Amino acid sequence: MKLATLKDGTRDGQLIVVARDLKTAQVADGIAATLQHALDDWSFIAPQLDEVYERLNLGRGINSFDFDPKNCMAPLPRAYQWADGSSYVNHVELVRKARNAEMPESFWHDPLMYQGGSDDFIGPMDDIALLSDEWGIDFESEIAVVTSDVPMGVKVQHAGEHIRLLMLVNDVSLRNLIPAELAKGFGFFQSKPASSFSPVAITPDELGDAWKDGKVHLPLRSTWNDNLVGQPNAGVDMVFSFPQLITHLCKTRNARAGTIIGSGTVSNKDPKKGYSCIAEKRALEMIANGAAMTEFMKFGDKIRIEMLDKNGKSIFGAIEQSVVEYAKN
Amino acid sequence: MKLATLKDGTRDGQLIVVARDLKTAQVADGIAATLQHALDDWSFIAPQLDEVYERLNLGRGINSFDFDPKNCMAPLPRAYQWADGSSYVNHVELVRKARNAEMPESFWHDPLMYQGGSDDFIGPMDDIALLSDEWGIDFESEIAVVTSDVPMGVKVQHAGEHIRLLMLVNDVSLRNLIPAELAKGFGFFQSKPASSFSPVAITPDELGDAWKDGKVHLPLRSTWNDNLVGQPNAGVDMVFSFPQLITHLCKTRNARAGTIIGSGTVSNKDPKKGYSCIAEKRALEMIANGAAMTEFMKFGDKIRIEMLDKNGKSIFGAIEQSVVEYAKN
Repeated sequence: MKLATLKDGTRDGQLIVVARDLKTAQVADGIAATLQHALDDWSFIAPQLDEVYERLNLGRGINSFDFDPKNCMAPLPRAYQWADGSSYVNHVELVRKARNAEMPESFWHDPLMYQGGSDDFIGPMDDIALLSDEWGIDFESEIAVVTSDVPMGVKVQHAGEHIRLLMLVNDVSLRNLIPAELAKGFGFFQSKPASSFSPVAITPDELGDAWKDGKVHLPLRSTWNDNLVGQPNAGVDMVFSFPQLITHLCKTRNARAGTIIGSGTVSNKDPKKGYSCIAEKRALEMIANGAAMTEFMKFGDKIRIEMLDKNGKSIFGAIEQSVVEYAKN
Repeated sequence: MKLATLKDGTRDGQLIVVARDLKTAQVADGIAATLQHALDDWSFIAPQLDEVYERLNLGRGINSFDFDPKNCMAPLPRAYQWADGSSYVNHVELVRKARNAEMPESFWHDPLMYQGGSDDFIGPMDDIALLSDEWGIDFESEIAVVTSDVPMGVKVQHAGEHIRLLMLVNDVSLRNLIPAELAKGFGFFQSKPASSFSPVAITPDELGDAWKDGKVHLPLRSTWNDNLVGQPNAGVDMVFSFPQLITHLCKTRNARAGTIIGSGTVSNKDPKKGYSCIAEKRALEMIANGAAMTEFMKFGDKIRIEMLDKNGKSIFGAIEQSVVEYAKN
């Protein structure tokens, strides 16, 4: 099943069901007004949404319309939790190596995770509006899951049962603010502005064989200013699976329905696969040449993040955004 | 105006208006079902709630009932953002001094703030349920504000206008998990389980003269196992006011309605005022005797957090909780 949220002037938008080929959609009228509502009562609501989905795929939608990701908010325009892991430890190791910092061995078996802001997500084709492009604006292409209620202390063998949906994320980062912020010891805050999500959230079954061991075994494509800069396989070099990330999150607390958990920047050890964030490219340059050449994003830059299935069809639709100067009122 | 949220079996509860003396309450029927709903459309809804409040204070409530904080959820049982500052820098300095770590001078002019989980808050009289009391369970008595929408880059002179409500918080901390977690560099995560809030959220005007310069000038009382252990004045030694914390939060992002921002553990330089978290008591012991004597909370321990007005009346109602072992299903 594929779901999205239409801009309708409200804070949470209007839940719509989107056909598998992303060509048509239908309002989830009378079933659930918002995606959060659907997640709050999933076992009752999901089967009804699935019926709409099946009819839509057969071309028998009722009052269906052309699906246009420009009219979409993030699937969850605001959420009660957004926690981002750092599962591709290769990425962490590279970035550290570039600044001559050794990576603790524990990073290979104890996930890094930070709590992000979740009150103001950006739609898939909406601008990334910031006050300055001196902050070192970077994209981070990731995959995220959305969970049901998960009890504290959940075991890893049960954690995967709580995954309801998957999305793509652009976890926008302000690299030049990170060193001073992390030095304070409280983690990321100002260096992690609002994140953006793919037009469509999908149930795991949509991935078929590509969903295995709690990982997505397909390349994630990042295109920066019309250049394909990365296509690492998200199933390769992912040290912590999504069930492991859920277990980490729930060690000391429950997670409630609609919790979003990110994979961290997708990164393969094979350098031919390119990069999913500029910081990694710069780290490779530092290691090779002693200096980073590639600059961070400037106002006017564009970023496109997408995942294609084996037949070259877009699964989630594309995150496709420009970085612009924030217009003060 | 005083508002609370009644347990009604739903995730967000039922918004109620509570009389100033906390004795009676009335459902906000037909005005707003939930506190988040009221905050989403505050300028339209607040005047209607205020009318109910005024009638209730005159003993003219309609279908009013006895107010019982046992039946309350947190005013916002789940929220889209919970960010906690560390405004009482004295507290930070003490805790660092105890472990022979110098505090950077910048901490006096650049606020510490971390992003907390906001999907699963604990009601004012509900248990703090955790899997282990070997984790170093500590209370942290704080004040928090709830904001309206705040634009990115808001100036400090305008930030205060966005404060809609105030509450008390118990920012439960797991002290024994903190050192290893902070050493990883990504900030708090597992060491900050679910937080608890006072029964009632109030508009700033309820504080009268005690609300000045974006600070609450009244003692915050912490009673641990029936011993009053702290009553520091929240208006004294608060280095960063709430407007300053809002400005810090909004440097690189908007904050959306219902954002909760905490003051950090209230702490006065005057040691006679006691402590608002056990870590501070232990820090003082370390500095004085080279060893901490006071142990963290164990299952069965109780904590009460309350603020009284000049006439000794409770303003927010009390947070009054027991620490218990989490019951696995």
